Amino acid sequence: MDINNEISKLDWKREPYGLYAPIEYTLAAGGKRVRPQLAMIACQMFGGKDEDVLPAALALEVFHNFTLLHDDVMDKADVRRGRPTVHVKWDENTAILSGDQMLIEAYKLLSGVPADKLPKVLQLFNKMATEICEGQQYDVDFENQEQVAIEEYLKMIRLKTSVLLATALQIGAYIAGASEEQQEALYQFGINVGLAFQIQDDILDVWGDPATFGKAVGGDIGCNKKTFVYLEAMRQLGDGASKELHYWYNQILEDNTEKIATVKGIFEALGVRATCENVVEEYTQSALELLKDLPQNEATRKLRKLADKLNTRNS
Amino acid sequence: MDINNEISKLDWKREPYGLYAPIEYTLAAGGKRVRPQLAMIACQMFGGKDEDVLPAALALEVFHNFTLLHDDVMDKADVRRGRPTVHVKWDENTAILSGDQMLIEAYKLLSGVPADKLPKVLQLFNKMATEICEGQQYDVDFENQEQVAIEEYLKMIRLKTSVLLATALQIGAYIAGASEEQQEALYQFGINVGLAFQIQDDILDVWGDPATFGKAVGGDIGCNKKTFVYLEAMRQLGDGASKELHYWYNQILEDNTEKIATVKGIFEALGVRATCENVVEEYTQSALELLKDLPQNEATRKLRKLADKLNTRNS
Repeated sequence: MDINNEISKLDWKREPYGLYAPIEYTLAAGGKRVRPQLAMIACQMFGGKDEDVLPAALALEVFHNFTLLHDDVMDKADVRRGRPTVHVKWDENTAILSGDQMLIEAYKLLSGVPADKLPKVLQLFNKMATEICEGQQYDVDFENQEQVAIEEYLKMIRLKTSVLLATALQIGAYIAGASEEQQEALYQFGINVGLAFQIQDDILDVWGDPATFGKAVGGDIGCNKKTFVYLEAMRQLGDGASKELHYWYNQILEDNTEKIATVKGIFEALGVRATCENVVEEYTQSALELLKDLPQNEATRKLRKLADKLNTRNS
Repeated sequence: MDINNEISKLDWKREPYGLYAPIEYTLAAGGKRVRPQLAMIACQMFGGKDEDVLPAALALEVFHNFTLLHDDVMDKADVRRGRPTVHVKWDENTAILSGDQMLIEAYKLLSGVPADKLPKVLQLFNKMATEICEGQQYDVDFENQEQVAIEEYLKMIRLKTSVLLATALQIGAYIAGASEEQQEALYQFGINVGLAFQIQDDILDVWGDPATFGKAVGGDIGCNKKTFVYLEAMRQLGDGASKELHYWYNQILEDNTEKIATVKGIFEALGVRATCENVVEEYTQSALELLKDLPQNEATRKLRKLADKLNTRNS
């Protein structure tokens, strides 16, 4: 079953046009469809039927795109996947209301799972949705927080990024009839892969190849984003020695060239890149470990490949 | 069971504070709690248990307050129930994200209904939530639409206001085991009461007693809101004679005193007030008719009283 094909079958040609056209626009932008694919792979691992998990897979993708839509309003981001964001193409009120409707559409899709599975799937989905909002709030809070501990940062990215991957896997496994232990193993696989993914993202922001990264290199540094790389550097420097980095991370500049070069220089003098890459490797290995006690089949192979790919990707 | 007491038992003292404090603030503002009460009354009418309908009743109230929170952002409204709105007290991003979480909390509450009732309750709730977003979109569309037919306006207020009352009643009845016909009668009662309520609101905006109305009289006229009163006047005037009213309804003025007096004068010359009051009376009577084939008990008496009260209210 091709998930892109299933997404394109969703019908948004509905009145009022002003509510549904932005939803169609958002979902048509593409993306890797990682979350619905994880749900389907987890279901396949335990011999479940694609059509049983499909409603939840679609719900997860629509939900994910809802979070992007509202995040872009909150971040005042103008571009997403190479196209104007909804609040730029239409306006902010449209982005808020169409986003609300997308969240409701996610629940409508979700309610299509087999009725006997619905209560538990709904509960898992609600927990995940709540945690993502909490993660987003922590992310906002950190902007105004002088010091952020690495543990706090890890908690934030677990909530904001990992639980969606983890829950996609758990729901897929649950629908296929996997045991609690198997569901939990896949959930933790998703958590670890998500952490590795986000830290790799933070690394690529500093050392990514501008030709393949897709975003401008140094963007996080420019806007003083407290990434894993930054927090690790601060930790290594300790209270006294962190003054120069702290100084640069309090500047809002028109031209970030010098700032990015200087901060990158500090990171490199500390050897932070290797430390961070080791952390990505550790989370990836932890994820792969979790697959060992699960059925070994085509689905497991796909998950293993995915974890490796996230670890070594350059974009 | 006292619904205000049950609402106050919901615990929002959770981390991150920035996400949950605005939800607590919004729900603590009070309001008439009409929607949860309708769900509970409908459940009582058919001998259902309060605790079975309570999760849905709370979900309906939290959902309603979510719509108010996001509507206030979209309308840039500064005050709600005598207090600063969330986007004023905190900021716009907080209002968007806490609103999203409130919508998720509504679904969390809803999932507490008896498991065998969940699929249908979720389906009714999703349909209602979708229609309210559609109603909000039509309301926005009408601002930029030169002509709005009375039928279009009725459709908009049915979606934006009535379906929430109607669905609250239907869910309560369904949970108590009412038949499809009984659920449908209560649903239509809610639709008719909602229409009467909104048109009465439009009348009060023009002819309400400033001492009891709560809002500034003439507010809808001031902001060129195409209310039922205005649309009925335009309909009576016909294409040629509506020029003066049309002229005033295109002005944005600092001081609305003359505009409100003039427009009110046009309405009164046409006798629009009586026409509108007749429509309220008709919808109220249609609502009361629908109660006749239902069980006659304390719950039915409460609904009858509610319909009468909405028809004759002055605030």
